[in-house]
Amino acid sequence: MENSKKTMDKIVALCKNRGFVYPGSEIYGGLANTWDYGPLGVALKNNIKNAWLKKFVQQNKYNVGLDSAILMNPQTWVASGHLGGFSDPLMDCKECKTRHRADNLIEDFDGTNVAGWTNEEMMNYIKEKEIPCPNCGKHNFTDIRQFNLMFKTFQGVTEDSKNEIYLRPETAQGIFVNFSNIQRTSRKKVPFGVAQIGKSFRNEITPGNFIFRVREFEQMELEFFCKPGTDLEWFEYWRGFCRDWLYSLNIKEENLRLRDHAKEELCFYSKATTDFEYLFPFGWGELWGVADRTDYDLTQHSKTSGKTLEYFDPTTNEKYIPYVIEPSLGVERLFLALVVEAYDEEVIDEKDTRVVLRLHPTLAPYKACVLPLSKKLNEQAGKVYEQLSADFMTDYDDAGSIGKRYRRQDEIGTPFCITYDFESVDDGCVTVRDRDTMQQERVAIDKLNDYIAEKIKF
Amino acid sequence: MENSKKTMDKIVALCKNRGFVYPGSEIYGGLANTWDYGPLGVALKNNIKNAWLKKFVQQNKYNVGLDSAILMNPQTWVASGHLGGFSDPLMDCKECKTRHRADNLIEDFDGTNVAGWTNEEMMNYIKEKEIPCPNCGKHNFTDIRQFNLMFKTFQGVTEDSKNEIYLRPETAQGIFVNFSNIQRTSRKKVPFGVAQIGKSFRNEITPGNFIFRVREFEQMELEFFCKPGTDLEWFEYWRGFCRDWLYSLNIKEENLRLRDHAKEELCFYSKATTDFEYLFPFGWGELWGVADRTDYDLTQHSKTSGKTLEYFDPTTNEKYIPYVIEPSLGVERLFLALVVEAYDEEVIDEKDTRVVLRLHPTLAPYKACVLPLSKKLNEQAGKVYEQLSADFMTDYDDAGSIGKRYRRQDEIGTPFCITYDFESVDDGCVTVRDRDTMQQERVAIDKLNDYIAEKIKF
Repeated sequence: MENSKKTMDKIVALCKNRGFVYPGSEIYGGLANTWDYGPLGVALKNNIKNAWLKKFVQQNKYNVGLDSAILMNPQTWVASGHLGGFSDPLMDCKECKTRHRADNLIEDFDGTNVAGWTNEEMMNYIKEKEIPCPNCGKHNFTDIRQFNLMFKTFQGVTEDSKNEIYLRPETAQGIFVNFSNIQRTSRKKVPFGVAQIGKSFRNEITPGNFIFRVREFEQMELEFFCKPGTDLEWFEYWRGFCRDWLYSLNIKEENLRLRDHAKEELCFYSKATTDFEYLFPFGWGELWGVADRTDYDLTQHSKTSGKTLEYFDPTTNEKYIPYVIEPSLGVERLFLALVVEAYDEEVIDEKDTRVVLRLHPTLAPYKACVLPLSKKLNEQAGKVYEQLSADFMTDYDDAGSIGKRYRRQDEIGTPFCITYDFESVDDGCVTVRDRDTMQQERVAIDKLNDYIAEKIKF
Repeated sequence: MENSKKTMDKIVALCKNRGFVYPGSEIYGGLANTWDYGPLGVALKNNIKNAWLKKFVQQNKYNVGLDSAILMNPQTWVASGHLGGFSDPLMDCKECKTRHRADNLIEDFDGTNVAGWTNEEMMNYIKEKEIPCPNCGKHNFTDIRQFNLMFKTFQGVTEDSKNEIYLRPETAQGIFVNFSNIQRTSRKKVPFGVAQIGKSFRNEITPGNFIFRVREFEQMELEFFCKPGTDLEWFEYWRGFCRDWLYSLNIKEENLRLRDHAKEELCFYSKATTDFEYLFPFGWGELWGVADRTDYDLTQHSKTSGKTLEYFDPTTNEKYIPYVIEPSLGVERLFLALVVEAYDEEVIDEKDTRVVLRLHPTLAPYKACVLPLSKKLNEQAGKVYEQLSADFMTDYDDAGSIGKRYRRQDEIGTPFCITYDFESVDDGCVTVRDRDTMQQERVAIDKLNDYIAEKIKF
């Protein structure tokens, strides 16, 4: 099934009805685009994170892990530039009291790309072109003011400015401030990378598209430290590595495009950046950013903290501040891409279509579901369930016809349905039905765990 | 080695020097008792969480998982009582401008237990006994005011009260508000449980004891829903289950005590509560709370949201609000307990003592370390490393004498050191040295992964 035929409505409905993703705080009417991950959603999310850790840390000799705190010393955000510059240009309509992003106003009006414009340039353009308020159509805006996207809170008992702290807007800075600690204690030599998974928070004005743009999200970031001059080589390496990892999780080539930033689009400190874009039902959307950030971050933290973050290279006796390659990925966006990619409606015959989630088996929330052919077999089938769940997330379903139960498992992506029937009592075998091919084969119960382990390898 | 001989100084130093735990934002002078988990710390943390998920979700037929948002609709905290009651009684000394908790002032003064006292009772007692300011010795306090422990922030562009939201102080409420969604979509019948791991935040006045009491922490909570009347039975079940799980991770009986709350100590809604206390180097400290919370939480959310959270029991045709058993555990506290428990100084002979971290193999950050006997063997040993790291977190060390390298791995708890020597080239075998017994045995390289998988089973 082509992605163009998949709709967000269907994806959202499946996610909600089958326990992948619920609206956050739903019984209280929700809270502005927050989402809760249900029993299947948390399993899929954990499998995504584990697949990333496996390839980016466990099996990668260069990289180690980190889990730094969400709450950081505010000087971090001075150094990183987030306190000064991580903001949206907002203006209010004085007539109808609605609030707008100046850049969006212009882009939505005539498609002009305002990247790099100052507030003054945007304001002049809005006046010149007489861009109206999209809500009331009037022309009576306030000036533009910058609105910082970091969530602010107070630590300690008084709400004065010396106690102001922020929820981190990205996990990357936790890696940079720990560069020396990690290098020293892990005794890694450059090149090496530090990989981190964790929550970040951005007070977005316009969250939306289900879990695509949210205020609270989880990142998987790698900061890869290398010798200046070798950075573009490593940039290519990680660009390819990330792309291949997505392919290995069954993302199709036609639904992924790698968009290299043109020179004028690059951040002032970046030598190269590539956006990985995925074809979501609402169009192409950014999935992964891979950037050569040069020595910008470590230099900024060196200057601001007064602590040198130079590396001494024992093979060449040189001192330098390493360059950084950063592949930065959002868990929720990848979650959405993988569900969209896996979603399929397969026509069985004229009257029958099945919905099947063709997730890579390593990502499937349940690896198997045990189905007793009759409730009379619950005791014996229960033992098969226990045997499987020792090694894998396993479901158990004894309600309804076998056909209906197969379809329920298809819809949540379970790769194997294990039917325990009356013959199983005698021959010690069960019928294993493959989610994708719907083929069935008879497998000995004492070989079942090995059979599944082999099939779900990643 | 007895816990009484282990000191926090040694534990903290090992954690910092070997890359388990660094002070948060250290290059900026830190941020009030935040901590970052280094390469080994994040691995240990993940292994703890996975061990919990395995036994509490994957292998438990009653329970499913959840991952709800940190940011929740504020009505949640009205219903749960956190907005009204989750606070500390604070007073200022007008003379020296220091701030104090009234309950601590009294308890530190003469050991009086003030549980259940009103602010007025505490104030009167402080005046009557002429309790002085511990800082300046004067008697000039302000009145007591309640200080809420929730971190407040603002969502959206204006900092007015209608945009006030809170960082969750516990993960439990995310489970309660999703009770109906989860029950419906997972088609679970009561009794069933919902297990969640996630960050929570409490603006503690006095964090301390390393990672024991922190403002940002991670919880592993199970809310187990059962029929009223069966709750005390299930309370016993989970109390035993949690205790046995700790034992299975090598926590010794002598370092764990289960303290049942006396009737007058119980929260007004709780029928039974047990604190699991662990013998930390600074004394007994709470590790795990198991509580029978009756139908308090679901009833509160029903009332506040206007949505019924009743359960219809299809086997008896009854409707009721389930009772809840809650085992609630902090990841960081368990992390600390496990490191303390594992820490050992073993006297080898008069001049030689080794530090060894006797972590359960399933928890050890690295399952194995590959050591080439000589750098000349790096290529072949590298292949053994690759073979092992396909399945396990594996370290590689070619620096220094074999004895030194063994000791480094002992100190970080690696259960197996794999030495590749000149004979290995011919016989296809390596020497496997056991961390705890220091015994060595020769194992065929092509059997190595199975050998280790068998030993680290959990």
